[in-house]
Amino acid sequence: MSHVFQWRVAAGEPSGPRAGLLATPHGAVETPAFIPVGTKAAVKGVRPETLRQAGVQIILANTYHLALRPGADVIRLLGGLHAVMGWDGPILTDSGGFQVFSLAALRRVTHDGVMFRNHIDGAEMTLTPESAVAAQNELGADIIMALDVCPPYPCPREEAAEAVRLTLGWAARARAAHGRPDQALWAIVQGGVEADLRRCCAGELVAMDFPGYAIGGVSVGEGHERLCEVVGLTAPLLPADRPRYLMGVGEPRDVVASVAAGVDLFDCVLPTRNGRNALAFTFGGPMRLRNERHKTDRRPIEEDCDCPACRRFSRGALRHLFAAGEMLGPILVTIHNLRFFVRFFGRLRQAICEARFRAEAEGLLDRYYGSD
Amino acid sequence: MSHVFQWRVAAGEPSGPRAGLLATPHGAVETPAFIPVGTKAAVKGVRPETLRQAGVQIILANTYHLALRPGADVIRLLGGLHAVMGWDGPILTDSGGFQVFSLAALRRVTHDGVMFRNHIDGAEMTLTPESAVAAQNELGADIIMALDVCPPYPCPREEAAEAVRLTLGWAARARAAHGRPDQALWAIVQGGVEADLRRCCAGELVAMDFPGYAIGGVSVGEGHERLCEVVGLTAPLLPADRPRYLMGVGEPRDVVASVAAGVDLFDCVLPTRNGRNALAFTFGGPMRLRNERHKTDRRPIEEDCDCPACRRFSRGALRHLFAAGEMLGPILVTIHNLRFFVRFFGRLRQAICEARFRAEAEGLLDRYYGSD
Repeated sequence: MSHVFQWRVAAGEPSGPRAGLLATPHGAVETPAFIPVGTKAAVKGVRPETLRQAGVQIILANTYHLALRPGADVIRLLGGLHAVMGWDGPILTDSGGFQVFSLAALRRVTHDGVMFRNHIDGAEMTLTPESAVAAQNELGADIIMALDVCPPYPCPREEAAEAVRLTLGWAARARAAHGRPDQALWAIVQGGVEADLRRCCAGELVAMDFPGYAIGGVSVGEGHERLCEVVGLTAPLLPADRPRYLMGVGEPRDVVASVAAGVDLFDCVLPTRNGRNALAFTFGGPMRLRNERHKTDRRPIEEDCDCPACRRFSRGALRHLFAAGEMLGPILVTIHNLRFFVRFFGRLRQAICEARFRAEAEGLLDRYYGSD
Repeated sequence: MSHVFQWRVAAGEPSGPRAGLLATPHGAVETPAFIPVGTKAAVKGVRPETLRQAGVQIILANTYHLALRPGADVIRLLGGLHAVMGWDGPILTDSGGFQVFSLAALRRVTHDGVMFRNHIDGAEMTLTPESAVAAQNELGADIIMALDVCPPYPCPREEAAEAVRLTLGWAARARAAHGRPDQALWAIVQGGVEADLRRCCAGELVAMDFPGYAIGGVSVGEGHERLCEVVGLTAPLLPADRPRYLMGVGEPRDVVASVAAGVDLFDCVLPTRNGRNALAFTFGGPMRLRNERHKTDRRPIEEDCDCPACRRFSRGALRHLFAAGEMLGPILVTIHNLRFFVRFFGRLRQAICEARFRAEAEGLLDRYYGSD
């Protein structure tokens, strides 16, 4: 790891719930931490000052989308992703692997890379481990990801095995291609729900000694139980002295189980996408603001929340904004949801530091999902 | 005027450009001032804190839209418009007259009021001077408007005359119906482009002694020259010791001419609507941010602007947000445009206070429209 990056476990158990500190060239991240998704170089509807005020520490953008539009070269000419997003904190970009396998059409995966037709104009494009690194070098995020093969769920064992084989070869080539010491290149563990494939993939990647590791290919329809199995199996295989990042996971019960297994970082579209659809996260469970019963309710979404939505707007006012098609509704509930995630993760971190993670986690889940 | 309202001309000429101070129960407004439009109880995409930071002093909402959805009674039950909009500064509501005559279908205007089918579900509704006041009493804005008849342009003389006749009768009835001393009821001068009708309407309304007067029925297609004629004729007919409000006008050349004629307040959708369409106001003239030439431009919209868009985002980044369909583009350019309007009006006010209005106005227009 370059001198500008540092990872330190501050409290907790090395292979259990842990509180860490990840230093990057654009500042530090206290973990466990949530990474809001800014797919196309914007967290939808939220200004960077507002993200910062909500306590967000690090944001994510997508190489696939940005390479398509406006182009990684354009982002570079505009001063890089930090300048384009107006955000001077840490940024992580994913490799584009997940998007190629979920959005693009007519994929052809070869040893060399993946050819596909993009989802915007259908033009044929190729992504290789080298081109994914080159694009991410141009984008300039603090943490970049090696190109992986992300199979769907369910998926035949031989397909998952082939994905691991390619992901491992591509990880080595990504590392060879990466040349910016101010960016950390992390690798992604694949292997579907096959324990031995996960073990093999993690073992090989760890042998290559990356400065950070992600667990990919989960939250693709396998359900909470299998997600817990995969994460519970994979996380302890990753070195305790490196940060662990679980990709695409944000459902509170999944987060709690994964933090318990030793995961440090999470990204997910849930707070932003649900916010745009009038679904607010609260510590007492989700709240559908379009519901008629909120019509004349003067209470905020959550009484003890300090976000700009809860400080100034009632449930009834928010319901009206959604009913009237006013964009301020999605904006405000997105901000609330991001603040909820920051507070939720903050409680987990504090509990870890105070050696009472299990009790806190149980209390949070009981309240969120109902204890009856 | 109730004791909570005060109007004072601080500088300038009584019937020429003037700087004033309008005190309301929710704070004071330094004039000339611009009133951003929050039709459905939201300035589209902008949080109230952001409006305040941009220097906005007063905002407007529409009785017609809010009476339809969620209903004036629902707004009242939610604590009134200030609570619903999260805005503790002054608010003005229009009567619904303009919207009935521009949006609704199958209008039938009688002595009593206007029957119409609303533009949302086509249901038949009636608006009378009394019901427009009752709705605005429920909404709770600081300044409310008497129901008027707003004819289109061009319009036969007899139609304009009939509009004046009805508007005068309705103004008297609105005043009789109004009972909240914490709200000021202002009347609207109609009369199309007919000088004698404007004179008649203004004279009759002034005789009724309203605490403030609006000039309505302009900026409906009559063009800059005729607008200047109508405003130049009407404004001096209104008492110097009352605020004057020009409805629906925001084009810089119209604003400057109208301030010169002694107008104090303006509302217009231009900064917000144009902002959503990637058109930025600058002191050097309008800028179309979708234009290809901004693609790799690292400069902000306007070098000396202190708004959140100009402080953190380049023209190239903003262009990308619009190209990618990201709502942050409309949000940021709306905020910039509102800040532009605040700064533009601020310069006019300061020039009036320093007795150099004409030179400032000429300089602003030369730069905005080009002097060649």
